[in-house]
Amino acid sequence: MNTSSLRHRVSAAIDPEMRVQSGLSPFNRVVVAGIIVLIAIAVLETEINVIRHYAWTMEGLKLGLFFFFAVEYGLRLWVATLNPKYSTVWQFARTPAALLDLVVLVTFVTPFLGLEAAVFRLLQLTRILRLARLGRYSRALNLLFDAFRSRATELLLSGMLAFGLMLGAATLLYLVEREAQPEAFGSIPRAMWWAVETLTTVGYGDVVPITPLGRFLAALTALCGIGIIALPTGVLAGAFSDAIRRAREDRLHEHTHARE
Amino acid sequence: MNTSSLRHRVSAAIDPEMRVQSGLSPFNRVVVAGIIVLIAIAVLETEINVIRHYAWTMEGLKLGLFFFFAVEYGLRLWVATLNPKYSTVWQFARTPAALLDLVVLVTFVTPFLGLEAAVFRLLQLTRILRLARLGRYSRALNLLFDAFRSRATELLLSGMLAFGLMLGAATLLYLVEREAQPEAFGSIPRAMWWAVETLTTVGYGDVVPITPLGRFLAALTALCGIGIIALPTGVLAGAFSDAIRRAREDRLHEHTHARE
Amino acid sequence: MNTSSLRHRVSAAIDPEMRVQSGLSPFNRVVVAGIIVLIAIAVLETEINVIRHYAWTMEGLKLGLFFFFAVEYGLRLWVATLNPKYSTVWQFARTPAALLDLVVLVTFVTPFLGLEAAVFRLLQLTRILRLARLGRYSRALNLLFDAFRSRATELLLSGMLAFGLMLGAATLLYLVEREAQPEAFGSIPRAMWWAVETLTTVGYGDVVPITPLGRFLAALTALCGIGIIALPTGVLAGAFSDAIRRAREDRLHEHTHARE
Amino acid sequence: MNTSSLRHRVSAAIDPEMRVQSGLSPFNRVVVAGIIVLIAIAVLETEINVIRHYAWTMEGLKLGLFFFFAVEYGLRLWVATLNPKYSTVWQFARTPAALLDLVVLVTFVTPFLGLEAAVFRLLQLTRILRLARLGRYSRALNLLFDAFRSRATELLLSGMLAFGLMLGAATLLYLVEREAQPEAFGSIPRAMWWAVETLTTVGYGDVVPITPLGRFLAALTALCGIGIIALPTGVLAGAFSDAIRRAREDRLHEHTHARE
Repeated sequence: MNTSSLRHRVSAAIDPEMRVQSGLSPFNRVVVAGIIVLIAIAVLETEINVIRHYAWTMEGLKLGLFFFFAVEYGLRLWVATLNPKYSTVWQFARTPAALLDLVVLVTFVTPFLGLEAAVFRLLQLTRILRLARLGRYSRALNLLFDAFRSRATELLLSGMLAFGLMLGAATLLYLVEREAQPEAFGSIPRAMWWAVETLTTVGYGDVVPITPLGRFLAALTALCGIGIIALPTGVLAGAFSDAIRRAREDRLHEHTHARE
Repeated sequence: MNTSSLRHRVSAAIDPEMRVQSGLSPFNRVVVAGIIVLIAIAVLETEINVIRHYAWTMEGLKLGLFFFFAVEYGLRLWVATLNPKYSTVWQFARTPAALLDLVVLVTFVTPFLGLEAAVFRLLQLTRILRLARLGRYSRALNLLFDAFRSRATELLLSGMLAFGLMLGAATLLYLVEREAQPEAFGSIPRAMWWAVETLTTVGYGDVVPITPLGRFLAALTALCGIGIIALPTGVLAGAFSDAIRRAREDRLHEHTHARE
Repeated sequence: MNTSSLRHRVSAAIDPEMRVQSGLSPFNRVVVAGIIVLIAIAVLETEINVIRHYAWTMEGLKLGLFFFFAVEYGLRLWVATLNPKYSTVWQFARTPAALLDLVVLVTFVTPFLGLEAAVFRLLQLTRILRLARLGRYSRALNLLFDAFRSRATELLLSGMLAFGLMLGAATLLYLVEREAQPEAFGSIPRAMWWAVETLTTVGYGDVVPITPLGRFLAALTALCGIGIIALPTGVLAGAFSDAIRRAREDRLHEHTHARE
Repeated sequence: MNTSSLRHRVSAAIDPEMRVQSGLSPFNRVVVAGIIVLIAIAVLETEINVIRHYAWTMEGLKLGLFFFFAVEYGLRLWVATLNPKYSTVWQFARTPAALLDLVVLVTFVTPFLGLEAAVFRLLQLTRILRLARLGRYSRALNLLFDAFRSRATELLLSGMLAFGLMLGAATLLYLVEREAQPEAFGSIPRAMWWAVETLTTVGYGDVVPITPLGRFLAALTALCGIGIIALPTGVLAGAFSDAIRRAREDRLHEHTHARE
């Protein structure tokens, strides 16, 4: 096998856009697995108990991942110009995706930068998303994004409504509770923390109204919180149901035309 | 340019109803931005730490906003009679919207009224809503309100059901827990605070049943809380899905007629 | 006006089934208002602070309500036989609805029975529901109940699924946390309290896993809780959307037939 | 009645697949009731207070259940070969379902294994599910599973989105709060516990951000939590509404063909 043919086969294995068959190539499945291990290590590394007990395992895995991703990065530079989108290697290397991969490689060899550098590795999650824009996931992604896009204004409006409600609830509770609890309700921004907790029905309970009037208003706020959940859910449900029907009608239409 | 022509151009820039093009005029975009700054200041002003550090910045911004909104109010009075809805300036000045804007201006020059006056400025949020009744938001607002209106009775009914459930749960817990926790469950109104928390799934945890029977009833209440969320969400989802379909059929119908 | 004619008019005013026009009669609107006051008093009466300050107002209102509902009960007995459903007064008096109204009257004149008796008055809420089975509410009630009935099996199944999940989560947390927290997780019934809290997303926080494995399992449980909410909501939303469409098609069908 | 005829009748009563009529046989209804008692005992047995007071009742019930299920197991072995699926008794006894039933029987007679063994009895819940795959439940089960299957990719995607959001929120809060609260936010895995609590809107409140920036980010996370609930709910609602419509169209189609 000569170099040119090898380069074409590497390109088809590495670059999803150069692959003829549908789905991920075996090589890219390994890349996805590598990214998952990379992220798991970046997450676990922050925990002192894990570092103490599995320090050598972690360092070994990181070394292995570094070599794997360094080689993979090199291969991608080597075959970049086969993709008609890039006329020079440099054009490929400047893309945000390639730069991010380079940053991740650099964080491996700069331990002195501390844990903050490791956090960059979590950005590799976006690469899984990039690789996933294929096959059956691309269909589902389109459905989700179509539903969001088609109802963007309604969702924005319900967000504005939620924000108005939150501001109103925080202002009322500030007026009612600020004397009883100056620490928690002593200003509108402080009362906002309570309002978000309540309207999203999270309800940590670290800040709770104690006056009867405050509790009455808080009860009304909590009931409004149901609307805050019901409104976007209802909008999205309607949009999904609409998108599904449209997709079916399109298929039916194609089918009818095909038979004619 | 003579005064009359200038007055017409100011009217078209200030009054959304006098504007020929769709969307907000550049002037009104500035007004919306001003209102957002106004509200942000009114909110931050209540926080003692912000006042201490940025007192001069805040006062400067407030002075600027006061002049901007005073001039804008004057201009609106000046061009009011160009809108066929108002035959005299006085008729415009008496509208709730214009009165609210005047109250906001007054709160700027009466610092001695304290923070309570500043709260009035938050009412300017409603003006953003008034300006937003245009363009793509008007369509989305109509969709939301149509869905609410078309299912108003169902939503009211599910609200009444929720209230009945809340009263029932509060009464039962009052009977069961009042001896164990007289402070929290010593009366039905007190137990209502727990019932709202639980049925809306907020669950602060400041009031929690401790007897086995109380916990059993509380568990049933919490499970009912799912229905309290599911019912209005389901009603709204159905209404949205219906409103979207109706809108599409109407468009299709118009289209068919237009082609005939 | 002779007695027979008066009796017919009283019957039309009191008995919703004997009324020709749609909607509630003016008399029954007063009855609904009376029931709301009755319930408000029954609720507030349990609060010691209210009894102390408004004791005379409460007693006066109760006396007035007692006479009003006693007279109303007498009138209903008087006109009962005009309704073809009842051939004798006794047949009407034995219906659960009439018996409940009698019990409520008795609770007014037996203060020595204590607050427990007052709780019976809350059952009058059901009478509002009985009166509400009319006009636009009857349509909405039908829609809600149709949606529930048509999907009863699916809702029951999702309830069984929820129960299975709850039992599974409680068992796992009991096995994992019982040594660390014997008071909270020392038996499966105790762990169930935590499981209900978590799966319904109430999350009081009075019982929380503390071991790493317990927290991991609790996180999985909390994520499953989303499904517990999403499943019945989705089923109901689908059922409502279906019921609305069916109602529209029926109307369209009637319309088409009427024109033929 | 000879043995062969008795064996066929036992088979029809015990094996749902050998029953001609729809629904559960009377014998299997007793089995379901027995399983419910079995599970209730396994659950209550873990509670020390119950064991102390009702030890003899529990032991008696367990003995009765053991004999009932032992006889039932024997009968199933006896009639197994009547079902065409099993050519030998051994082939039936090796099925996971039969092995599980045997394990449950063994746990009864091995009290020395402790409570962990009793937990196995909870697995009998799955047998209720196996028996329920009949009649009206089978229809509902099919609807639920169809809706899940038809939208599996979308639900998986929204799960991945939720996981990404959770990781992002945990990382940000770890960076912001780890110095203020090293115990709760000192590593990403620890911050994950907070992130799950918040995004699922459970909100126990055992771990809460205290810095202003941490609270701001937590508020954003809580608002995203609404999306985490709205997305799968909307997908499922759309899928159910679609599955219901498809089922109706199929019925309509069959009906039309039948009339032709």
